[in-house]
Amino acid sequence: MITSTHNPLVQRIRALQTRRRDREREGRFVLEGVRLLEEACAARVGLEAVLHVTDLDPRSVAALAAAERAGARPVPVTPAVLRACADTETPAGLLAIAELPVPTPPTAPRAVLVLDGLADPGNVGTLLRTAAAAGLDAVYLAPGTVDAYSPKVVRAALGAHFRVPVLTFDWAEPPAAWSALRLYVADMDQGPAYDSVDWRAPAGLIVGAEASGASAAARASAISAVHIPMPGGAESLNAAVAGSVIIFELARQRRTT
Amino acid sequence: MITSTHNPLVQRIRALQTRRRDREREGRFVLEGVRLLEEACAARVGLEAVLHVTDLDPRSVAALAAAERAGARPVPVTPAVLRACADTETPAGLLAIAELPVPTPPTAPRAVLVLDGLADPGNVGTLLRTAAAAGLDAVYLAPGTVDAYSPKVVRAALGAHFRVPVLTFDWAEPPAAWSALRLYVADMDQGPAYDSVDWRAPAGLIVGAEASGASAAARASAISAVHIPMPGGAESLNAAVAGSVIIFELARQRRTT
Repeated sequence: MITSTHNPLVQRIRALQTRRRDREREGRFVLEGVRLLEEACAARVGLEAVLHVTDLDPRSVAALAAAERAGARPVPVTPAVLRACADTETPAGLLAIAELPVPTPPTAPRAVLVLDGLADPGNVGTLLRTAAAAGLDAVYLAPGTVDAYSPKVVRAALGAHFRVPVLTFDWAEPPAAWSALRLYVADMDQGPAYDSVDWRAPAGLIVGAEASGASAAARASAISAVHIPMPGGAESLNAAVAGSVIIFELARQRRTT
Repeated sequence: MITSTHNPLVQRIRALQTRRRDREREGRFVLEGVRLLEEACAARVGLEAVLHVTDLDPRSVAALAAAERAGARPVPVTPAVLRACADTETPAGLLAIAELPVPTPPTAPRAVLVLDGLADPGNVGTLLRTAAAAGLDAVYLAPGTVDAYSPKVVRAALGAHFRVPVLTFDWAEPPAAWSALRLYVADMDQGPAYDSVDWRAPAGLIVGAEASGASAAARASAISAVHIPMPGGAESLNAAVAGSVIIFELARQRRTT
């Protein structure tokens, strides 16, 4: 049982929680809570260790047992140690050190989402969740976008990382798989209305930063802007909402036409 | 210049930030940042005071001057005092004590949003923003929903409170104005697909709590559930995303058919 927050494993987890560099060097990230642990087990994500308090509820006991069968090392800890490891203020009873998924880039994608500079981890996690639900082939993160494996993104994505490939790229060398895609960039008011675009051909949607919008490189890569008409007048939408509304219009067209 | 965090005004602002009861007793809430202050001035929201640091950027200086012309009392404070008053960890240079808007209930609404037990302030603020952008006639908050004037909701809504009436109600006595509305409740998989509903007649959408969904009372009030088909398989969407996707389908149908 780990009882001290000075334990080296605790220090290592805190580094994984706070520093992208440490996550990438180790090839590990941290999952918090029973639901994410269940999702990781179901997706056969490699699990190194599961830190847990000793008075777990039955659902957490079952998830811990499943993780052990999958090769994870159980590590009992005190509630204070778990709090020290957790990003949430009131952590659930367990958290896991997991292997970073190695995403398979799609070779002939039919629908992708590109996030260009989004800074809010809740927005990025929410958009990953939308992309997984809509069955997109991949999500690409441009430089300047918050890391997909930072704790708040992982929490908001609720396991979407395990169901849609999440990739990074640089605008100087866009993925070759994009060559067959029509790329649109979400805008406040430019381009056609999002529902007058024909989304049935292979397509990608670029969503830009919350405050400043998409970068010049993103705009240069797109064949057109696209916007959501706002009956309420001059408004803006949350970036995750705007991206999701357009993505589900793509899904709607492909389902119904 | 207020230099002490023990100043009574600072204590009062902290109470307004943290306690709904204090907001309701005083009829006041707190706005943080220049953008919300600009929005409040433009909407002629009553402003009692604006606390500000003394090295404001030009945009904030202009917003402060506009607030003064509208009757707000400027109160210079130290950065430490502003931090003590702010809900954000890295506050902007100013925050205001504003009057709670007195919403006018719509008499013959054509589109409303009902939030039933949502606990995440970011989701509630995002849905208020969506409702304002989509031009809905009102947003109704059921008991158990996070207070619309709690600081994180105010921040996420970005001034939507000033552009769409935000009302509370109880399921035991639903608003009379709802009698002409078809109420639908968003569900994971029940009812028709959201885009096969005819949204052109007066309608309302109920969005339920993030974890447990809509209450029994909400379901009993609805004529039907409605769901968003998920090509990605058994998934769930963020509650604010799900509500927004359906609301913009309503807006789309009314605009194009």
